[in-house]
Amino acid sequence: MAKLRLIPRDERFFDLFEQATDIAVAGADALQCMLSDICRAEECRKQIADIEHAGDSVIHDVMDKLNRTFVTPLDPEDIRAIASRLDDIIDFTQAAAERVVLYDVTTAHTGASELVKVLQQTVLEVKKVVALLRDLGGQRKAILEHCIEINRLENAGDRIYREALGKLFRAGDLLELLRWKEIFEQIEQAIDQCEDLADVIESVVVKHA
Amino acid sequence: MAKLRLIPRDERFFDLFEQATDIAVAGADALQCMLSDICRAEECRKQIADIEHAGDSVIHDVMDKLNRTFVTPLDPEDIRAIASRLDDIIDFTQAAAERVVLYDVTTAHTGASELVKVLQQTVLEVKKVVALLRDLGGQRKAILEHCIEINRLENAGDRIYREALGKLFRAGDLLELLRWKEIFEQIEQAIDQCEDLADVIESVVVKHA
Amino acid sequence: MAKLRLIPRDERFFDLFEQATDIAVAGADALQCMLSDICRAEECRKQIADIEHAGDSVIHDVMDKLNRTFVTPLDPEDIRAIASRLDDIIDFTQAAAERVVLYDVTTAHTGASELVKVLQQTVLEVKKVVALLRDLGGQRKAILEHCIEINRLENAGDRIYREALGKLFRAGDLLELLRWKEIFEQIEQAIDQCEDLADVIESVVVKHA
Repeated sequence: MAKLRLIPRDERFFDLFEQATDIAVAGADALQCMLSDICRAEECRKQIADIEHAGDSVIHDVMDKLNRTFVTPLDPEDIRAIASRLDDIIDFTQAAAERVVLYDVTTAHTGASELVKVLQQTVLEVKKVVALLRDLGGQRKAILEHCIEINRLENAGDRIYREALGKLFRAGDLLELLRWKEIFEQIEQAIDQCEDLADVIESVVVKHA
Repeated sequence: MAKLRLIPRDERFFDLFEQATDIAVAGADALQCMLSDICRAEECRKQIADIEHAGDSVIHDVMDKLNRTFVTPLDPEDIRAIASRLDDIIDFTQAAAERVVLYDVTTAHTGASELVKVLQQTVLEVKKVVALLRDLGGQRKAILEHCIEINRLENAGDRIYREALGKLFRAGDLLELLRWKEIFEQIEQAIDQCEDLADVIESVVVKHA
Repeated sequence: MAKLRLIPRDERFFDLFEQATDIAVAGADALQCMLSDICRAEECRKQIADIEHAGDSVIHDVMDKLNRTFVTPLDPEDIRAIASRLDDIIDFTQAAAERVVLYDVTTAHTGASELVKVLQQTVLEVKKVVALLRDLGGQRKAILEHCIEINRLENAGDRIYREALGKLFRAGDLLELLRWKEIFEQIEQAIDQCEDLADVIESVVVKHA
């Protein structure tokens, strides 16, 4: 972009967004780690709590900056919506990790690892699409493609969740069913928030068309 | 409306919306069918999956058209919101149907049929109110009345769900409770999405007052 | 504010909002009462149903007034969003109370009283912040502080819910677990709606900066 920038500091919003997506990626990776080595669950739980804390701080910076900035690169309500979704992704990732520890899970569920794998892929897409927001006009097509991919991944996650729940029902161990249902729901919600974010981004693209 | 239309093709959005409401109605009807003849559940499940697929394609057309249209009959974000709610109604209807099969349900629950009956009535109201969007100004009063009716139906559904859950708790068969709770929740979510849609439509009416 | 008001009747929106927050406070208090004296649960249930009914009527007045008012003190969609969240807070409070009766709860759960305590504190914050909306410009800082406090309370509530659920899982009485999980979820949703309301209010503040 050769366009002269008169108010370059505004670009800091995008820096903060990218930090938040890195944190979301780190959270999903740490959750996968937790499931792959469940006896270190408590250690991973703490790590994810720290990651969530770092996320909170970045989101707080976005909101703070928003309240002190006159000319923003996107509409203020869109910046808020994007920040809020990124926050939610990390929160639900942490909520899943908390529950693994709280419910005394001792063996990981294959379906859960699969679902977290989808979460990892989805937050990577989120990272990519958020990086493109700096050039909304030029990257319009690429942005929409990432949004479609996020929707596809959300559907894939939904299927995994559904199948896993079906198996748990058929197995008939109710405590195990309840435990994993709760954990699955948090992971699925994290993925759902990615989809909501894609939704916000799509509407931003439409608005700036 | 005698008003000269200079950009008549925009009206296609309303055609697509009406297709989507027809699909939502078909989905709710198929779910009722499934519950009334549970041994044909798998067959109905496939039928509803096809219906959901058709819905996806219509919603995709809306979004696609939105990205290529300059002057839209409603604000782009409202068109997106309406399409997205219609999509959700169909998705939750399918999610309920999937669960009936996944959880090996062998006998239908009376409360579930009652709740799906409410879903059928609600999507019929949705169909009616969406058809009136073509004439937002002239049909303002009728539109708001349908929205009120949708809210009333949602409340009625909520009551049915609550009572049914109470009975399941008292019966004490936990597996049965969990199974139906999950299915009820999906049906209720489908109805909730109708209410959310009514909400969007009310705000569109307010905006265009 | 010494500013001359040419259209003073608009201020009625704020009166209605304040009525709705009083009703939300009354609802949370009544729910706490119910839990502290569970043998009078049915009596409290009826009282909360009346409170919810009064809330519906106020929200209906807001929406009605909105449809008949040309110049509103806030954007119409924000007035709708605020009213809708206030309505939801009361609805979920009632939903929790209904479930206490429906599921034949005979002894209150300590965690539930704690969580309702958080709900009580949160709706009091909501009452305070909504009262400040009349002077959006002058009270900007105080408004944002209340919003932060609402977010803090929501986090505190989340922790209580999580801990309580962990204990219920470890206790292993599945029916008791399911019963309280359902009730907890409704209380938590009531608190979540407060957070959503704070979110709407924050975006209103940003918009009017």
